[in-house]
Amino acid sequence: MPNERKIILYIAMSLDGFIAKHDDDISFLAQVEQEGEDYGYSAFTQTVDTVILGRKTYDKVLSMGLKEPYGDRQVFVLTRNPHHKIDKITFYSGSLSDLVSSLKSETGKHIFCDGGAETVHQFLQNDLFDELIISIIPILLGDGIRLFGQCFPEQKLRLVESKSFEKGLVQLHYIRIRD
Amino acid sequence: MPNERKIILYIAMSLDGFIAKHDDDISFLAQVEQEGEDYGYSAFTQTVDTVILGRKTYDKVLSMGLKEPYGDRQVFVLTRNPHHKIDKITFYSGSLSDLVSSLKSETGKHIFCDGGAETVHQFLQNDLFDELIISIIPILLGDGIRLFGQCFPEQKLRLVESKSFEKGLVQLHYIRIRD
Repeated sequence: MPNERKIILYIAMSLDGFIAKHDDDISFLAQVEQEGEDYGYSAFTQTVDTVILGRKTYDKVLSMGLKEPYGDRQVFVLTRNPHHKIDKITFYSGSLSDLVSSLKSETGKHIFCDGGAETVHQFLQNDLFDELIISIIPILLGDGIRLFGQCFPEQKLRLVESKSFEKGLVQLHYIRIRD
Repeated sequence: MPNERKIILYIAMSLDGFIAKHDDDISFLAQVEQEGEDYGYSAFTQTVDTVILGRKTYDKVLSMGLKEPYGDRQVFVLTRNPHHKIDKITFYSGSLSDLVSSLKSETGKHIFCDGGAETVHQFLQNDLFDELIISIIPILLGDGIRLFGQCFPEQKLRLVESKSFEKGLVQLHYIRIRD
């Protein structure tokens, strides 16, 4: 039976491709906040049991005061400075491809890449994404931290779904096509 | 009566925000070619009687062998090296804001910005777009010429429409909101 665990990027960016301003300010996301609308996030997180994210993003998430932001999921924090494991949090400084191969060889739900930009770039350079769910916020930020850097291999995608929401967010869902 | 001439960007980019590879290769657009489907281009061009584009893009359009690619529309080619006017083609090296003000003070149809990246950047730096119609092609190019550069002022948008097509192109139509 083929293993079906997928690596999924689920993230928001401005129309001009920024996930934050240079000082990590993500206040532009507030414009799409709407009571009772989570843009599919809860449903998405039910499909994953593992999270991979960069150390800076992890610190940012912690600084937001959320206790156990990923619930009981296994979390891998990519860092150049390895720490001891804390409960379900593993600080990982090895090869990302090896980590992904290892996770895919196990049975489980899908694997959520929660950014940030450096981590996304590592995934792209190694062509590791199986699906991308990108929410486009109706704003041009004009500057900041780009979701998509440069110098990674071309990757063909298939559009699975495009949904637009009342606040003008458009969510695009793609699958990576490997010939 | 308020003048209603709008400056409209109508352009395609990869999901990662590139309009071409570094050598101006736009062959990635071929993947969305489909007989009988022009993604609204003809209908759009019926709403415009004036085109503004950069000199390099103009040369590229000419090199594609199209005779009168813009029909009988007024064309302004932005260039640092002014030439004499040729029929409906004006080579313009003055202030873009002045050109836009002047065109908007006249009556007429809308005004089409046909790129490329340097020209788009000039429009963005001066906050001159009234509408943006962006077609997102289902591919990550990984490198090339970006549609949206950096260092221009933040610009809020309102989503007017989002359309997805059989080949996976998603066309996003935004209006610039000026408070």
